[in-house]
Amino acid sequence: MAQYTPPLRDMQFVLHELLNVVDELKQLPAHADVDADTINAVLEEGGKFASQVIAPLNQIGDQEGCKLDKATHEVTTAKGFKEAYLQYVEGGWPALSCDPAFGGQGLPHVVNQCMYEMMNSANQAWTMYPGLSHGAYEALHAHGTDEQKKLYLPKLTSGQWTGTMCLTEPHCGTDLGLLRTKAEPQADGTYKITGNKIFISAGEHDMSENIVHLVLARLPDAPQGSKGISLFVVPKYNVTPEGKIGSRNGIYCGGLEHKMGIHGNATAQMVLDGAVGTLVGEPNKGLAAMFVMMNAARLGVGMQGLGLTEVAYQNAVAYAKDRIQMRSLSGVKAADKPADPIIVHPDVRKMLLTARAYAEGGRALSIWTTLLLDKELSSEDEDERKDAADLVALLTPIVKAFLTDNAWISTSHCMQVFGGHGYIAEWGMEQFVRDARINMIYEGTNTIQSLDLLGRKVLADNGAKLKKFGKIVRDFVEEEGTNEAMQEFVNPLAELGEKVTKLTTEIGMKAFQNPDEVGAAAVDYLRVCGHLVFGYFWARMAKIALAKVDGGDPFYKAKLHTARFYFAKLLPETATLIRTARAGAKPMMDVEESLF
Amino acid sequence: MAQYTPPLRDMQFVLHELLNVVDELKQLPAHADVDADTINAVLEEGGKFASQVIAPLNQIGDQEGCKLDKATHEVTTAKGFKEAYLQYVEGGWPALSCDPAFGGQGLPHVVNQCMYEMMNSANQAWTMYPGLSHGAYEALHAHGTDEQKKLYLPKLTSGQWTGTMCLTEPHCGTDLGLLRTKAEPQADGTYKITGNKIFISAGEHDMSENIVHLVLARLPDAPQGSKGISLFVVPKYNVTPEGKIGSRNGIYCGGLEHKMGIHGNATAQMVLDGAVGTLVGEPNKGLAAMFVMMNAARLGVGMQGLGLTEVAYQNAVAYAKDRIQMRSLSGVKAADKPADPIIVHPDVRKMLLTARAYAEGGRALSIWTTLLLDKELSSEDEDERKDAADLVALLTPIVKAFLTDNAWISTSHCMQVFGGHGYIAEWGMEQFVRDARINMIYEGTNTIQSLDLLGRKVLADNGAKLKKFGKIVRDFVEEEGTNEAMQEFVNPLAELGEKVTKLTTEIGMKAFQNPDEVGAAAVDYLRVCGHLVFGYFWARMAKIALAKVDGGDPFYKAKLHTARFYFAKLLPETATLIRTARAGAKPMMDVEESLF
Repeated sequence: MAQYTPPLRDMQFVLHELLNVVDELKQLPAHADVDADTINAVLEEGGKFASQVIAPLNQIGDQEGCKLDKATHEVTTAKGFKEAYLQYVEGGWPALSCDPAFGGQGLPHVVNQCMYEMMNSANQAWTMYPGLSHGAYEALHAHGTDEQKKLYLPKLTSGQWTGTMCLTEPHCGTDLGLLRTKAEPQADGTYKITGNKIFISAGEHDMSENIVHLVLARLPDAPQGSKGISLFVVPKYNVTPEGKIGSRNGIYCGGLEHKMGIHGNATAQMVLDGAVGTLVGEPNKGLAAMFVMMNAARLGVGMQGLGLTEVAYQNAVAYAKDRIQMRSLSGVKAADKPADPIIVHPDVRKMLLTARAYAEGGRALSIWTTLLLDKELSSEDEDERKDAADLVALLTPIVKAFLTDNAWISTSHCMQVFGGHGYIAEWGMEQFVRDARINMIYEGTNTIQSLDLLGRKVLADNGAKLKKFGKIVRDFVEEEGTNEAMQEFVNPLAELGEKVTKLTTEIGMKAFQNPDEVGAAAVDYLRVCGHLVFGYFWARMAKIALAKVDGGDPFYKAKLHTARFYFAKLLPETATLIRTARAGAKPMMDVEESLF
Repeated sequence: MAQYTPPLRDMQFVLHELLNVVDELKQLPAHADVDADTINAVLEEGGKFASQVIAPLNQIGDQEGCKLDKATHEVTTAKGFKEAYLQYVEGGWPALSCDPAFGGQGLPHVVNQCMYEMMNSANQAWTMYPGLSHGAYEALHAHGTDEQKKLYLPKLTSGQWTGTMCLTEPHCGTDLGLLRTKAEPQADGTYKITGNKIFISAGEHDMSENIVHLVLARLPDAPQGSKGISLFVVPKYNVTPEGKIGSRNGIYCGGLEHKMGIHGNATAQMVLDGAVGTLVGEPNKGLAAMFVMMNAARLGVGMQGLGLTEVAYQNAVAYAKDRIQMRSLSGVKAADKPADPIIVHPDVRKMLLTARAYAEGGRALSIWTTLLLDKELSSEDEDERKDAADLVALLTPIVKAFLTDNAWISTSHCMQVFGGHGYIAEWGMEQFVRDARINMIYEGTNTIQSLDLLGRKVLADNGAKLKKFGKIVRDFVEEEGTNEAMQEFVNPLAELGEKVTKLTTEIGMKAFQNPDEVGAAAVDYLRVCGHLVFGYFWARMAKIALAKVDGGDPFYKAKLHTARFYFAKLLPETATLIRTARAGAKPMMDVEESLF
């Protein structure tokens, strides 16, 4: 079975040495009293929960999956899942970054994000239950009526109830404008909702007393398409005005999907048969309200990718040090053994360091993005809120798509380190790969993320948001301009920055003539931007490591090596990506449909 | 469930228009009478078997897997597997390319290879049963005594009996020098063999009367390491001198592995408890004898990758034409529908065309390699045999690793085209991805393939074999030097050819100083060479298509588009690979082991 050790040291490095989060948070009245000790203590406890409580359930969840009783429509989760959830609730973990007005602990998102990385390393399928709940909390917190907040937020905050997002229908996933679920207004102000939803993660289970579904549906007179969609809260059990559990509502699980991975999470087909719901936000503006949830969820999916990358790396390193096989090409290394440990082989190291560089780069990027989210939500300065919001908007599709694509690459590499043993369920490596695959699909496929980045976040404002990030990179490059030791890092970073600027302009010009040029370049473009962000953080991390490496702490030595590896072996992917992005739409769009 | 249509038209294009196999085979006395009609008729019938008999069992095999009765050690395969195998035997398919001296049909390997592509598209797990048998046939045919040939080859040729390769042990896969299974000579000239083998594909099942295991083991006085390994034939049931089935031998299945994919194939732990075997080939030279089998198996694994790439492509195209979702960025395409079919989106096409270009390029390469194998085995001209053998040696690791890496990329892309539906077992797409993953691991991991290519096949003879292939490319480039229409293809091909030469020299020089430079560059190097070979074939295919495209057959139009796509979007991967190969061993090997 796979093992997991929370990477507390590296989290502390990013939080305190790279990003100085405590100083940053001091500027935000809501978090001004958060100190480093608090953060570290929370993460240490959180790490224990992840590694000791839910990590041991990961393989069980994969093997047992979830079971639906077709007669009662009730779903039983894998052995131990419910008990772990009760422990999670007792520990107060759901409340970590929730609003104190509803029982939350009010800690910054940045702490919660680290907690989620660890939980996803330990058990992604399990973590999706509280993860979805938190999304429902965010949407109701942002758009719910006072009555809805009063009824639902305390229970979601305590974790007594969980939540879901009910968007997808059999004929529509990406294109929610096509959705057909109907909401009929009732005399008492509620709505009766009827329709079929599919792919509802955590849609039904036995872990909480009630499940708060957030459901997209159409009002009778709604305009066609995406401008006619409204958001409703539809609890599994109706809730009395006093907040007590009432009668069973007409929303139930009609089936569970058999999936490639995340078997421990119930992916439910939900049938709404005149289910009673109340409107969240304004009529026909449900998509916008849902996007509050969706943006949080996208950062959350990035954490799933990061978590899997980290845990796959840890296990592959342990195996590579232990497994002996063949001799090093450059001479015997372990003369006392019949063969050398496979970590002596350059390609094994290349696979390991790829995962490591992607994990540590991803950690820096995602913690920074979440710190910006805390500023966007809590800063008292309007300009700072705007700047932070712009950067979060720009970075969110990168966190989602780049980190999950990297996780696919990394988990597959780490599995490869195990040779044939990687393909066998016993070791747990192939589960990481299967679990990692969904993260490239849900909450908007990675192609959709790339269109969001290039189309909406970059080209739509003529690159204004991108320039904000570009300035941060340029300032850093200039700052290090005379630092000889930093040239190996800042030179390729500066070069890539210039190439991104040129590439953006070029695609923008071509897109004027033919909008398909955006669709043709977007996926390559997102990965180029991902490397720009990673290049920036690896250069900054290298700077810190250079300053401290002589102190003898091997952590900084390792950091410096990984930075060098990143620039030598991973960032050069941009050479191809820029070429293929520039090759444009013609090679795809010239082909008549009938020729496929 | 996934669908499959044998790509007969494209196979015929490669066989008859690209490679003129009939003319080539005419030079080989053993195959001089094979005509195009025969080949086409065999492939048409073979395609029916693949698509109608075993394709419908692919998902069943995945869901049911294999069952071991621990009391009897007997394994039951999934519903329909045995019946399909009996049909395969009745159709005479196992005999296709076998020696007529033992009941074979004596057709060239090139026909058999096409048959295997189709069977692997239809059902890789099922196809491994006859595939492994054929490997056992090859090893016994090459190294068996007359007695062994007489006893085993007719039954392996007819398919009444199947075969396996028993190499791996719990502590050794890649490094067979470590193996421990022991063979004790007996007074009657047989050996009693004792040990534990794992990961034995098709190791136990209910499909044939007997199973002929080829087992690597050590004689009592054998030298240590890989020079002390001998090969034995160890049947499940002992065989009487008359070739009849005798008593049960002491080799049995002790367990079945739970795997990521290929569930329909029994991956057996085999216990040898004084099993009776006879020596194949010379004592202590078992590895060399096994490599006959292994080389054939490596080409076979390439076919597994190719087969999965093709079938994944076909299903993704059908879905992309059918599924409507969003509007084209360049304006509504299907005004009569509420959304456009997703094939209008550039990135969907990019994913599809990637799979298509890899499938068609892979088909050209693998059929050519197998034609060379026929020459190596059957030419009367010694020089021709030598040239063919050199090219087969050079190309085998490329076929194995490049085609299976491409299959991993392609099946994942094709699954992505399905969005959330791709992650669900129902559609069959995620099974292709899971099945594809093993092909990068077994029969020598793809890293091992790359070391074989760069170390043994290229650097060990100072690039002599590579130069043979280089000359073929250069001759073609020069031939097309004045053909204006071909410049878009031959220019990048010529450029890549020069870069490969330079890169090879550079790595060779560095390797003198530090052998780890080979291990550091090998994986990137193999993909660069893969693109050189693909570039060569795509240019040649484009030439044929250019000459015929005005005739109105859309096949040539599609071929030309795919060639252009390949050069615009896939071959540029070499820009990165060459950079990372050149970055060398330092970024990996500078890192002390304790820092991982």
